[in-house]
Amino acid sequence: MRQANLHTILRSLHLGGAASRSRIVADTGLTRSAVGVLVAELVDRGYVTEVRSDSGGKRGRPSPSVEPRSKNVVLAVEVLVDSVAVAAVGLGGPVLRSVRRDRSRDQTEIGQTVRDIASLVASVVASLDSGSKIWSMGVAVPGLVRRSDAMVILAPNLRWENIDLVELLRDEMSLEIPVFVGNEADLAALAESRRGAAAGIDDVVYLSGEVGVGGGFISSAQIVDGVSGFAGEIGHLPVNIEGVPCNCGAVGCFETEVGEEALLRRAGRATDGGRVAVAELLSAAASGDESVLEAFAEHGRWLGFGIAGLVNALNPSAIVFGGFLGPALPFVLENLQKQLAMRVLSVVQDDVSLFASNLGPDAPLLGASELAWNHALEAMVLES
Amino acid sequence: MRQANLHTILRSLHLGGAASRSRIVADTGLTRSAVGVLVAELVDRGYVTEVRSDSGGKRGRPSPSVEPRSKNVVLAVEVLVDSVAVAAVGLGGPVLRSVRRDRSRDQTEIGQTVRDIASLVASVVASLDSGSKIWSMGVAVPGLVRRSDAMVILAPNLRWENIDLVELLRDEMSLEIPVFVGNEADLAALAESRRGAAAGIDDVVYLSGEVGVGGGFISSAQIVDGVSGFAGEIGHLPVNIEGVPCNCGAVGCFETEVGEEALLRRAGRATDGGRVAVAELLSAAASGDESVLEAFAEHGRWLGFGIAGLVNALNPSAIVFGGFLGPALPFVLENLQKQLAMRVLSVVQDDVSLFASNLGPDAPLLGASELAWNHALEAMVLES
Repeated sequence: MRQANLHTILRSLHLGGAASRSRIVADTGLTRSAVGVLVAELVDRGYVTEVRSDSGGKRGRPSPSVEPRSKNVVLAVEVLVDSVAVAAVGLGGPVLRSVRRDRSRDQTEIGQTVRDIASLVASVVASLDSGSKIWSMGVAVPGLVRRSDAMVILAPNLRWENIDLVELLRDEMSLEIPVFVGNEADLAALAESRRGAAAGIDDVVYLSGEVGVGGGFISSAQIVDGVSGFAGEIGHLPVNIEGVPCNCGAVGCFETEVGEEALLRRAGRATDGGRVAVAELLSAAASGDESVLEAFAEHGRWLGFGIAGLVNALNPSAIVFGGFLGPALPFVLENLQKQLAMRVLSVVQDDVSLFASNLGPDAPLLGASELAWNHALEAMVLES
Repeated sequence: MRQANLHTILRSLHLGGAASRSRIVADTGLTRSAVGVLVAELVDRGYVTEVRSDSGGKRGRPSPSVEPRSKNVVLAVEVLVDSVAVAAVGLGGPVLRSVRRDRSRDQTEIGQTVRDIASLVASVVASLDSGSKIWSMGVAVPGLVRRSDAMVILAPNLRWENIDLVELLRDEMSLEIPVFVGNEADLAALAESRRGAAAGIDDVVYLSGEVGVGGGFISSAQIVDGVSGFAGEIGHLPVNIEGVPCNCGAVGCFETEVGEEALLRRAGRATDGGRVAVAELLSAAASGDESVLEAFAEHGRWLGFGIAGLVNALNPSAIVFGGFLGPALPFVLENLQKQLAMRVLSVVQDDVSLFASNLGPDAPLLGASELAWNHALEAMVLES
């Protein structure tokens, strides 16, 4: 019970930031005296400090502010085809250090990747304040990660299959810390629901458009990961039984209608233009180009068609659009909302708000840090 | 901690049935001495009995069997358009009494319904063994039930809107017990995952075909209910943007392709034939009628198309088919599996098994009893 209460307070400070004891009493439902004892223990352990603010003209004794100490640190890693990133994130969420190293597509081989990560980790760790304690590490990977043993079963763009990334990293790094691995879209969803566009919202659908379309679901503040951890493959919702072939081998998957290539096709551009070509379309739309706006409108119709299904299935509070779908949201919104209005029961529609991602490309890295914190907070409590 | 352990043991006996102390030790991870103390307390409270079996020729002292006592009871209610049912279910799951009263469609008015339920409840309660203790009641309703306050927001077939069924029932009944309300398909999913086709499986998609198609998701053994409790509207997944109009006002919803009317249409029958006409098709298929088998095959293609999306999104261990889709499963299976093979990643496919419901039309009523037990087990522990 004491450990559960310590965890409740630590989690509230981690997610909500510094708070007065009175605020902690209100947020947690614990008694004032219990909060006093527990906060004193967290201070002793070096997890938080109490800062007595000068209350100026206010009457009465000011309630000191309880502040999470960012010398408690986790490491976050993101592996992409064209870069590797490492960040150090303090208790309470501050990004203390963050480095990204670009690389070419032929450097995605697993051995090279692990050495790259270890060298970035070493430089990040060396730059931390002395006395910092590193509790754990989270890694975001663009692939299927099995829940039971954290194996990367398949990461097609990296050409990885059945990789035990945890063991490889622990062998290569000089750090003895627990390592956790998650799917990048699941972790981006987690980050957006904790610190991004849907901060504080517990039932979130996240989808991110690039060449493919990835996604993740948060339900009651937890990642919905399915029996093996493979849930959230929104890009492969079937939407068009008469549609075009998908890279996955099927026909008419959601990403064939709402990924980058579909947008470029609708705008009459070459479909291999990638991010740069999509950025051009976004600025053409912003300057009112009619034919480009029509392409976005048709994109919005298909986006709404697929999202209506997710809303009917999952009854979320928020949909967060990442990748190019974030900046595209204003141009697809009208048709998207028409589809929702036509296809979703009005009480369910009333529940849902649409947001553009505000963490952008950092979302998976921040999500990896939150995965690490899930475990770090438990470890901190068990140690106390 | 003691209460949590009592709850663990009670839940394990409720779901798994009678077990020896050794078995409880193995299932719960508690020590033998802790289990001894906790079981003694459960015996004192009248929740379980210990029965020493005659071990016959076996050596050693036999471990007595700890048996849940079914004088601990919950009530389950199901409200349908054409009938109302009430059951009494004992700890451990035995159905002690069950009655169903048919009614005509013009008797679904809420006042009449509540009086019907109360009179059935009174007769069921009167028939229970003396000394029975009724802990709670669960009610299955064919409509949207809001999680926060259990209001029935919309039940179109009953023509109910914003009904506070809990208060109405408590006013009408002479029992002072807590009442919980859930969506019938969510509760059927819960029942199938606890005591039915997917017993013991924690990640389940349930879908039931009638005129409409309802569904429910179980993830990590919990109902996925979304922010307001409206999740699981599988019948309104959009699958055919060029499809036929749905009763909901949209076009091309899943139920327009896999509900009763779609099957009758494909078989060239009148689409208003209902359950009887579908039963005829099932027996025609069983006797090898080619044209009927073709209709089922096309049905299977659309079923697979929609289910592939659910499997990609949710990575379940089991799909359970209720309503006419249960008996139809053998006739739709080939095309259904073809769609899954084409559309679902092989590692995700490997996770999933397909089952026909084996609770059939009783699933929602049994699910209502499990909803009641969720709360009853907690109440039993708090009282002890």
